Amino acid sequence: MKKNIYPFTAIVGQDKIKKALILNAINPSIGGVLIKGDRGTGKTTAVRALAGLLPKIEVVKNSPFNVDKNSYLEYELYKTDDKNPKDDIELDKIPMKVVELPLGATEDRIIGSLDIEKALHEGIKALEPGILAKANRNILYIDEINLLDDNLVDILLDAAAYGVNIIEREGISISHPSKFILVGTMNPEEGELRGQLSDRIGLEIEVEGITNIEERIMIMKRREEFERNSEAFNQKFKKEQIKLQDRINLAINLLEEVEINETFLEVIARITLEHGSEGHRSDISILKTSKTIAAFNNHKKVDDVDLREAIRLVLGENKFLSERIQDIKRDIENRVSDES
Amino acid sequence: MKKNIYPFTAIVGQDKIKKALILNAINPSIGGVLIKGDRGTGKTTAVRALAGLLPKIEVVKNSPFNVDKNSYLEYELYKTDDKNPKDDIELDKIPMKVVELPLGATEDRIIGSLDIEKALHEGIKALEPGILAKANRNILYIDEINLLDDNLVDILLDAAAYGVNIIEREGISISHPSKFILVGTMNPEEGELRGQLSDRIGLEIEVEGITNIEERIMIMKRREEFERNSEAFNQKFKKEQIKLQDRINLAINLLEEVEINETFLEVIARITLEHGSEGHRSDISILKTSKTIAAFNNHKKVDDVDLREAIRLVLGENKFLSERIQDIKRDIENRVSDES
Amino acid sequence: MKKNIYPFTAIVGQDKIKKALILNAINPSIGGVLIKGDRGTGKTTAVRALAGLLPKIEVVKNSPFNVDKNSYLEYELYKTDDKNPKDDIELDKIPMKVVELPLGATEDRIIGSLDIEKALHEGIKALEPGILAKANRNILYIDEINLLDDNLVDILLDAAAYGVNIIEREGISISHPSKFILVGTMNPEEGELRGQLSDRIGLEIEVEGITNIEERIMIMKRREEFERNSEAFNQKFKKEQIKLQDRINLAINLLEEVEINETFLEVIARITLEHGSEGHRSDISILKTSKTIAAFNNHKKVDDVDLREAIRLVLGENKFLSERIQDIKRDIENRVSDES
Amino acid sequence: MKKNIYPFTAIVGQDKIKKALILNAINPSIGGVLIKGDRGTGKTTAVRALAGLLPKIEVVKNSPFNVDKNSYLEYELYKTDDKNPKDDIELDKIPMKVVELPLGATEDRIIGSLDIEKALHEGIKALEPGILAKANRNILYIDEINLLDDNLVDILLDAAAYGVNIIEREGISISHPSKFILVGTMNPEEGELRGQLSDRIGLEIEVEGITNIEERIMIMKRREEFERNSEAFNQKFKKEQIKLQDRINLAINLLEEVEINETFLEVIARITLEHGSEGHRSDISILKTSKTIAAFNNHKKVDDVDLREAIRLVLGENKFLSERIQDIKRDIENRVSDES
Amino acid sequence: MKKNIYPFTAIVGQDKIKKALILNAINPSIGGVLIKGDRGTGKTTAVRALAGLLPKIEVVKNSPFNVDKNSYLEYELYKTDDKNPKDDIELDKIPMKVVELPLGATEDRIIGSLDIEKALHEGIKALEPGILAKANRNILYIDEINLLDDNLVDILLDAAAYGVNIIEREGISISHPSKFILVGTMNPEEGELRGQLSDRIGLEIEVEGITNIEERIMIMKRREEFERNSEAFNQKFKKEQIKLQDRINLAINLLEEVEINETFLEVIARITLEHGSEGHRSDISILKTSKTIAAFNNHKKVDDVDLREAIRLVLGENKFLSERIQDIKRDIENRVSDES
Amino acid sequence: MKKNIYPFTAIVGQDKIKKALILNAINPSIGGVLIKGDRGTGKTTAVRALAGLLPKIEVVKNSPFNVDKNSYLEYELYKTDDKNPKDDIELDKIPMKVVELPLGATEDRIIGSLDIEKALHEGIKALEPGILAKANRNILYIDEINLLDDNLVDILLDAAAYGVNIIEREGISISHPSKFILVGTMNPEEGELRGQLSDRIGLEIEVEGITNIEERIMIMKRREEFERNSEAFNQKFKKEQIKLQDRINLAINLLEEVEINETFLEVIARITLEHGSEGHRSDISILKTSKTIAAFNNHKKVDDVDLREAIRLVLGENKFLSERIQDIKRDIENRVSDES
Repeated sequence: MKKNIYPFTAIVGQDKIKKALILNAINPSIGGVLIKGDRGTGKTTAVRALAGLLPKIEVVKNSPFNVDKNSYLEYELYKTDDKNPKDDIELDKIPMKVVELPLGATEDRIIGSLDIEKALHEGIKALEPGILAKANRNILYIDEINLLDDNLVDILLDAAAYGVNIIEREGISISHPSKFILVGTMNPEEGELRGQLSDRIGLEIEVEGITNIEERIMIMKRREEFERNSEAFNQKFKKEQIKLQDRINLAINLLEEVEINETFLEVIARITLEHGSEGHRSDISILKTSKTIAAFNNHKKVDDVDLREAIRLVLGENKFLSERIQDIKRDIENRVSDES
Repeated sequence: MKKNIYPFTAIVGQDKIKKALILNAINPSIGGVLIKGDRGTGKTTAVRALAGLLPKIEVVKNSPFNVDKNSYLEYELYKTDDKNPKDDIELDKIPMKVVELPLGATEDRIIGSLDIEKALHEGIKALEPGILAKANRNILYIDEINLLDDNLVDILLDAAAYGVNIIEREGISISHPSKFILVGTMNPEEGELRGQLSDRIGLEIEVEGITNIEERIMIMKRREEFERNSEAFNQKFKKEQIKLQDRINLAINLLEEVEINETFLEVIARITLEHGSEGHRSDISILKTSKTIAAFNNHKKVDDVDLREAIRLVLGENKFLSERIQDIKRDIENRVSDES
Repeated sequence: MKKNIYPFTAIVGQDKIKKALILNAINPSIGGVLIKGDRGTGKTTAVRALAGLLPKIEVVKNSPFNVDKNSYLEYELYKTDDKNPKDDIELDKIPMKVVELPLGATEDRIIGSLDIEKALHEGIKALEPGILAKANRNILYIDEINLLDDNLVDILLDAAAYGVNIIEREGISISHPSKFILVGTMNPEEGELRGQLSDRIGLEIEVEGITNIEERIMIMKRREEFERNSEAFNQKFKKEQIKLQDRINLAINLLEEVEINETFLEVIARITLEHGSEGHRSDISILKTSKTIAAFNNHKKVDDVDLREAIRLVLGENKFLSERIQDIKRDIENRVSDES
Repeated sequence: MKKNIYPFTAIVGQDKIKKALILNAINPSIGGVLIKGDRGTGKTTAVRALAGLLPKIEVVKNSPFNVDKNSYLEYELYKTDDKNPKDDIELDKIPMKVVELPLGATEDRIIGSLDIEKALHEGIKALEPGILAKANRNILYIDEINLLDDNLVDILLDAAAYGVNIIEREGISISHPSKFILVGTMNPEEGELRGQLSDRIGLEIEVEGITNIEERIMIMKRREEFERNSEAFNQKFKKEQIKLQDRINLAINLLEEVEINETFLEVIARITLEHGSEGHRSDISILKTSKTIAAFNNHKKVDDVDLREAIRLVLGENKFLSERIQDIKRDIENRVSDES
Repeated sequence: MKKNIYPFTAIVGQDKIKKALILNAINPSIGGVLIKGDRGTGKTTAVRALAGLLPKIEVVKNSPFNVDKNSYLEYELYKTDDKNPKDDIELDKIPMKVVELPLGATEDRIIGSLDIEKALHEGIKALEPGILAKANRNILYIDEINLLDDNLVDILLDAAAYGVNIIEREGISISHPSKFILVGTMNPEEGELRGQLSDRIGLEIEVEGITNIEERIMIMKRREEFERNSEAFNQKFKKEQIKLQDRINLAINLLEEVEINETFLEVIARITLEHGSEGHRSDISILKTSKTIAAFNNHKKVDDVDLREAIRLVLGENKFLSERIQDIKRDIENRVSDES
Repeated sequence: MKKNIYPFTAIVGQDKIKKALILNAINPSIGGVLIKGDRGTGKTTAVRALAGLLPKIEVVKNSPFNVDKNSYLEYELYKTDDKNPKDDIELDKIPMKVVELPLGATEDRIIGSLDIEKALHEGIKALEPGILAKANRNILYIDEINLLDDNLVDILLDAAAYGVNIIEREGISISHPSKFILVGTMNPEEGELRGQLSDRIGLEIEVEGITNIEERIMIMKRREEFERNSEAFNQKFKKEQIKLQDRINLAINLLEEVEINETFLEVIARITLEHGSEGHRSDISILKTSKTIAAFNNHKKVDDVDLREAIRLVLGENKFLSERIQDIKRDIENRVSDES
């Protein structure tokens, strides 16, 4: 059964959300996005649309865990009676997916369930993989994430802590890798997100309403057009989609080489301290985000524009920060001139 | 067992409710109606009465999911041991139904239940279809919808998100289409409707009490007459019912061809913005509703009367809006004259 | 095991309660009584005593659902392997009963339970009928009805909506008629009754305390006499009981023929509107009640005394209303003289 | 295993409690006692001690329901394969018991549990009798009765309503008589008793603390003596116990013959009305209690002393009432002289 | 597995707690101790240490219920197929134990569980004894007793009421003696103890903090020494432990003979009345405690020092009481001189 | 599957936390650490990093309980059909571990689960060991320990009380040693820790934020470096890790010999008394901690520097205490000079 998904490039406005999602597609270690905003502003549409852009990953063929060859062997995710599994591994390239976690999901559905009888004889085959298996190396999307039950939050935190999902039943313990990019949407009026969980999410973006009449008309028309004939609509945006996908793929390849100079590190440390951030999470987020932006901009070195965008994405867009960014820019220039 | 249903055309007054229900029968993509009002004002009677007017849809014969041929094949809703199912498909035309979801329904009753043993050998046949199966391509009616349990709301939202109902048990996953028109009635004094759910409903109508003595007498008399002999009563309104049914069927055929001009799109965008609507849902609702009204009025092009009625149905009837509609009318005329 | 029931005619005072109960015995479509009052005022005694007066109904012999021949065939309430069930039906005449629904009843006990295995082969025989089966065509009595659990209220509402009880388990669905007269007693100090439920009850009566010394002594004496020797006590009131039963039976036969003139309909519409009633339930209740009172008074046409009593029973006894009834009386007279 | 019970006649003080318990032993239709008071005042000791005084009742031998011959046949409490059960019934005389209902009892323990398989073949034998079976025709004692769970209260009320305990499981329904004298103790500081339950209890007594030094010493000495050697202690009070038992048995026999004159009935009606009692329960309680006191005092006619004690036991001991009792006395005398 | 227990005689300070525990070891009818105090003050250590001092009791060999010969026969705690059980009984002398009841214990763990199948054929052997079986004739210790769940409190109260634990399942009822000395510790800041339970405990002691530097150092040193090498530490206190054990055993033998004169009884009654005690529990506690203190002091007659200590242990140490004790002393002397 | 753990010696700042963790690795009898602080301050990283430093312990080979030879025999942790188990015991040296207890763990997962059938024949082998088995002689780590469910807290307290985990099911009781070092982290803003649990933890440390720019940059760089290539990063710190491990191992060997003089004991007693500590836990903690610090500093005798650090770790760092420490130092010197 095929779901009809709205093309990402057909989304009108919402540049910060789109950028944050793209950056995570390039660099999963940014650690996901939390999108906050009123209902009806297209948050969920954007996340679901991302599915159409995601790069391909190499996986062991038919693996329900989307594992690469190394993890396959490390976790012994093969039949226990296979003699020489290493030679048999067939690989496949499949696109990353957006896996949704519904608020009402049961623990078993998320973790997977284990057939104890079978587990004694067949090992990993006794596991009926759950959402965390499907979400491995993919995007795990939770709408209304702030309304998620506490015990489900615990499960996500357990898995996220080491990137492993461990299923234990009656003394039998089976594990598989579970590294997901967590994307959540929420309406802050309906309650706060539990601190432990928001800590696990790299970027936090606030949606703003669109008040431009032309954009609003365009949204209406596109939405109606899409609902009338989604295939034709997708066709219309195919070119743009492919272009963006290519740019993402290039950035993925470039990312490893991107560098940042020492001065910029100090800038990051100062600005988060002034901003009053708890701990060191913001520092590390800005660092990774700025490198990913550089890659997306096809830079091998983070420049001050990349950095400024990263700071805005991580710390938000407030007046004080804008001014500080100016000061920092001067600071950078003075230092760079001093140092040179 | 036959339920005795009150004829829709015998309902006295309540024009907006009746119109909203009719429009959904013509164009399910309007997305349902939420009817708000005090008890005893005939909300439920109106919804149930709609059943007598609904058009026929073409379904695969005896399908518990009311699917058309395409969905039947796409979802593989046939016995797994059938050799060449495509040739065997018999089709049938049956009227749409009003399927009720009682507040106390269990999850299994809504989603359907799965016989795991059987599922391995017989696929879809292992599914005991639930309310969501019956509601596919039909009207799903929930009385006191604001009192529905949160986990049931989750189920509805899951199904509504992609128009699919997925039943997962112990790793077996079976899915069938689940596209329903959601109609709910509620008494706002008994609590608000959860935002995620009201977002899924296209039109929101407030019932007004009837104070006209003649109408009240007519209601009394008709109700008593109906209770005394419902068959005779239905006979009396048969002609009127058939006339309305015909008009609905005509509108369904016309709908595809209905167009709206650009200026009207701008009018929609402006008025919702002034009205302070969150997001873009109102814009899209007005667009679809105005086209459906046009079809019901046998117009191929939305005119300003169609549009004004659509705006009133979507945004409600308040003084400010009425005046704005006048301004818009002038606006439209000026523009149209300017443009011509 | 025989329960000793206090004779209805031995109840001292409480005329409105007794009248309301009698009217329902004559005309079930009035829709039950809700009796409100302090504890110890004999509410429950009155309801239980009604059992001694109830008319006989014709049922299919030994039917646990108390069905008549038509329902028996319509619902296919016979063994699935019977060849020609229609010829075998034996009928029986049994008195209506007062079936009590205890506050702590389980869902299964109310709806009935289904033996799934058996259901496949034996149809309706797999159903273990519940309280709703016993209550069909009888009086369903709930003491402290305002304290009933919400899920039980839901069940009652489901059954009351179409007069059908549907038992669904694992995709098997069995239904039987479930048309009951709902009688509830409650102490308003212990909480309100849920609106959906009170809407389903035709008449609402408030008990008043008895302050007349002679009546109080009579109550004491009769109660003690009854407790000392209930059989002798019942014997003493046998004549009066039979007389009242006969009058009820006569009224049942007359009811079909009773008429009401147009003017009176207008009177009803006006007075409920002035009284500020939500919706149209009061209008219809007054209409039915006045006709039933007429039948009990052996009138073929509702007169103004019948109507006034009906209005008092439905809308309650307040000063304003009493005066309005005077006005209406004049109104009626003027009109009648004008019209004649 | 034998429980060591403190002798009733060894209880120092607490005359009203002792009297109330004795009266119930004589006349179960008084309907039990509710004893209110602080902890440590010997409430529970008194109730348990009553067991030593209770009269014998005639029961069918080995009946777990303590039934007499009539109930045995009426309820068909014999093996279903017995041919001619009436001839086999052996009778026995056993003393009434005090059956305790612990706060934490389960529903099954109270109602009894049913072996469904067995029920089809062996009828009543399939019932494992519960506390309500043991309590039939006995005293059912609940300590801290105000803390009893609501669903257990419901069960007691169901059984008390008609004096029958009905066990229903999967459509099988077995019933046995369940007529108990309800005795409860409670500390009013820990919460009120639910109204429906207190309505079922005939007398309500407040314990008063003992401040007399001699009595307090006697209590200490007796308690220590009892704990040191309970058998010797019981022996010491044997004579007194037998004397009281004899008086109770005489009263039981006399009770049927006791009469009350009309004037006294009026006195009762007036005083309860002045006292502001809801309903008619107080009237009936005073009536029965005064007759039972008369029987205990070996009178065949209630005199004014009997009546005054009854009024105090039912309505409590307050100043206003004492004065009214004087007035009533005069009233009685005047009337009696007037009448003679 | 052997638990290392701190020696009772190595406990520094806390004389009242130690005395209260010793008195209960001598005379279980005192009814336990409730120790109130802040955390870290050694309450639990003291209770656990008591285990090292407890006297031996004679039990039927290997009885899980610690019963003596009489109870063994009375309760029929032998195999049902034993022919002549009385001759086979082997006896054993084992020390009393401290049995702990953890807050989280289940009902089954406390009461014991019953194998129904087995119960029909093997009687008592079908019982898997619970904590109440182990606690029979022993000390039952509950830390944080004020936090115990209500249903567990109910179980304790049921057992304590008659000294019997009754296990009932599906109509099978098995009982064994359950007479325990209840010792609880609690921190009053974390909530009060339910009244019914505190009523069951004879003595109530408040821990006081130790502020003496030498004692605090001694506590530190001893604790560290014990943790370093618990066996050597125990050896060091062996002599003192044996001496105290001997004194306890002597007191047990003497206790039966101890007497108290009438005057002292009056003193007890007066002082508790002045103290405002509810009911008579304090009187009886002082009486028993004073006799036990006398036995521990090797007196055959309670003297005024014994009595004064008993009063302090039962009513607590407040200024008013101390002065009253002086008055009482004089009172006693005057009386004694008057009487002689 | 191998978890990538951050090297302990690469942690920037946080000296008190690191010291507290090291001291527990040297001397488990200190009884764990409770680390309090805001999120994102690296609390959890530090605890997990400790795993890389932990000393080896000698265990019975493949024992799921990590037991030494003595416990193995004492607890009979061998197969019941082994003839002469003592001769077969193979020993192994394995590093201590950090075992995590997730907030959502079930009771069974913590205690272990028991196969009753098997238990009768195979004893300990029927036990499926739980977290408490794995945690024996290891560090048990609980993140957000203040949010742990009450029943899980109970389990930990039960096990901690005697160092034993007892699994009881249906009368079968199996036990194994369960001595763990409890390490918890918590954010005090999210609620307090239950008193009973914090009592069981020896040291309590508050994290402070790092405001030094160089340190913050270093944290960022190291974190990024570690995430980029954790193996290389670990290699870089290997030398430092080995050095610290060696120092820990030396301290473990020295610890037994470390002594403290009498004067210092008095100092401890005085300062905790002035500090207002409940009970004696602080005294004993300071005593043990100071000895462990001495061992880590390679002293055979606690000096005043060791003591001062111990006091700061146990009682926290406040101004008053710092001054008192100066006074104490003088006190010590005066005394020492006086004594010498």
